[in-house]
Amino acid sequence: MSVLRRDPITGRWVVFADAPPPVLAADGPCPFCAGNEQLTPPEIARWPRSDRRHDRPGWSVRVVPNARPLLRIEAPLERTADRIYDTVSGTGAHEIVIETPEHRRSLAELPREQVALALAAWAARMEDLKRDKRFRAIFVFKNQGVLAGAGVPGHVHSQIIGLPVTPKALKEILQGARAHYQLKERCAFCDILQEELDAGVRVVQESARFVAIAPYASRHPYECWILPREHRADFEAAAADERDDLAALLPTLLGRLERVLPEPDYNLFLYSGPNRQARPAKWSTLEADFHWHIQVLPRLLHETGFELGSGFFANTVTPEQAAAALRAVT
Amino acid sequence: MSVLRRDPITGRWVVFADAPPPVLAADGPCPFCAGNEQLTPPEIARWPRSDRRHDRPGWSVRVVPNARPLLRIEAPLERTADRIYDTVSGTGAHEIVIETPEHRRSLAELPREQVALALAAWAARMEDLKRDKRFRAIFVFKNQGVLAGAGVPGHVHSQIIGLPVTPKALKEILQGARAHYQLKERCAFCDILQEELDAGVRVVQESARFVAIAPYASRHPYECWILPREHRADFEAAAADERDDLAALLPTLLGRLERVLPEPDYNLFLYSGPNRQARPAKWSTLEADFHWHIQVLPRLLHETGFELGSGFFANTVTPEQAAAALRAVT
Repeated sequence: MSVLRRDPITGRWVVFADAPPPVLAADGPCPFCAGNEQLTPPEIARWPRSDRRHDRPGWSVRVVPNARPLLRIEAPLERTADRIYDTVSGTGAHEIVIETPEHRRSLAELPREQVALALAAWAARMEDLKRDKRFRAIFVFKNQGVLAGAGVPGHVHSQIIGLPVTPKALKEILQGARAHYQLKERCAFCDILQEELDAGVRVVQESARFVAIAPYASRHPYECWILPREHRADFEAAAADERDDLAALLPTLLGRLERVLPEPDYNLFLYSGPNRQARPAKWSTLEADFHWHIQVLPRLLHETGFELGSGFFANTVTPEQAAAALRAVT
Repeated sequence: MSVLRRDPITGRWVVFADAPPPVLAADGPCPFCAGNEQLTPPEIARWPRSDRRHDRPGWSVRVVPNARPLLRIEAPLERTADRIYDTVSGTGAHEIVIETPEHRRSLAELPREQVALALAAWAARMEDLKRDKRFRAIFVFKNQGVLAGAGVPGHVHSQIIGLPVTPKALKEILQGARAHYQLKERCAFCDILQEELDAGVRVVQESARFVAIAPYASRHPYECWILPREHRADFEAAAADERDDLAALLPTLLGRLERVLPEPDYNLFLYSGPNRQARPAKWSTLEADFHWHIQVLPRLLHETGFELGSGFFANTVTPEQAAAALRAVT
């Protein structure tokens, strides 16, 4: 059984997994392709929605448990003192969203309707998992390419993890946004959105409902954020027409990245509000002070000791240069 | 000229460098070998100490400026508002400590006296750089191997960076240690040291003055910390006999790592107190609440989106397993 341990100085959590991640034979059959459904654990959900034909072809988007989960939903939640240290049981969800039945590398290759189904799957799974009060936050992310930590390269998918503690990186964003709100009575992300639309030089792409920017303090070359124009704390609370707009913008944005950086490895992070059902008092002001968004982080180089050890990043491409290059291609 | 930009939400700093890092031809002459002194910028210091023979052979340890520095010591320090954002000029020091005149890959291959000179160089450079009140902190680190971000593989060296803002990762450690002290009136690292010596299972190696442990919440397999038994905030304040003791322990510890993980890539971080001359009031309690130490972080895998995006780490080797494996080899 996995267990979470807390670093006593920094509050950083580490999952000690009970099984190493699977090593898939590069020449074996792809477990995410239609027809190979028996190579994954039993299906959790599929789109188009159906109660029949589970684990058989006929799906456009399919959600399955991770075959080697970091956390397990059946583990009872226990918070334990281990002498001077703190541990939490490895209780959580670890799911895979297979975003197309065809063997495609990237969301950028998929039609808008297919991406819309993938986003519907993200929203539905987040909504469902937030009903479980053991989960403090649900984190959706994507590892594309080996440098980004991908385990199953070559077939586009995302991962959804439900966590019994709020992840440190999300907590920093939540706390930073709250501090900004408390000082100014304005949402930090709404301020960034307005500043970027005014300045223009870091805007990569706009749609009716979203703005994609190269953020002011981009960690890596060509980092992009997608900010919804409408202030809202939770991705899963967005209406279907907002998701449809994103389903057009997201593959276009990734397509720009793939034109500027051939076959780029990148991570995608979806930062949505933490689970208020788990801690209502702690997040009582969240509707005002947090603004869901997506971050896309290209991984061109290995993080150095300077970056990992100091928390600084060193970048050689300014977001103004990155935005200009990304705007120039389609 | 480099510039530092601050992420407005998380407070993370990014250095936008004015030159990309150098790409060295793998088959070119090694700029760090004795006889090739003209391939580096002019020498800052050498050991054994000498005012003569600069930039000519005869040294055991040599300190030179980084040929493509992230920060420049001649840049005037300026803190500027950039509309809603914050920037700081790229003012700082970026030095290389060449830890042997011979072409050796690892500190583990060097005799104790040679390592002692390298540690003396770290201490002397930190002491000197802390006289410059523009520098909030001095960070010493080592990138060994490509996965750890090394630019000049194959010749053992460290980097020293003087920074005009306190790095976020050091700040987290300082704040965590201070919070512990304020609650308990005890140093957090002294508590960890006592707990680890009591428990024993995570101790890798002991010397008269130091204890090497696999930390309780190890981020990666075989992570090690070296804690001085004597509580002290600053590495550079340690006496020569304490450094000599470390000069025996450090290569032995790295040698254990290299026995368990053949040719391991790793980072080494030296966390010493920030520069009190720059901000005396802010760090007035530091002598009590901080405890300098070294962290060695093996880099076996790429950080995944889960790790980078959530701030969690996923590990498959417990520190108890790692310590047992490291103790079993010499």
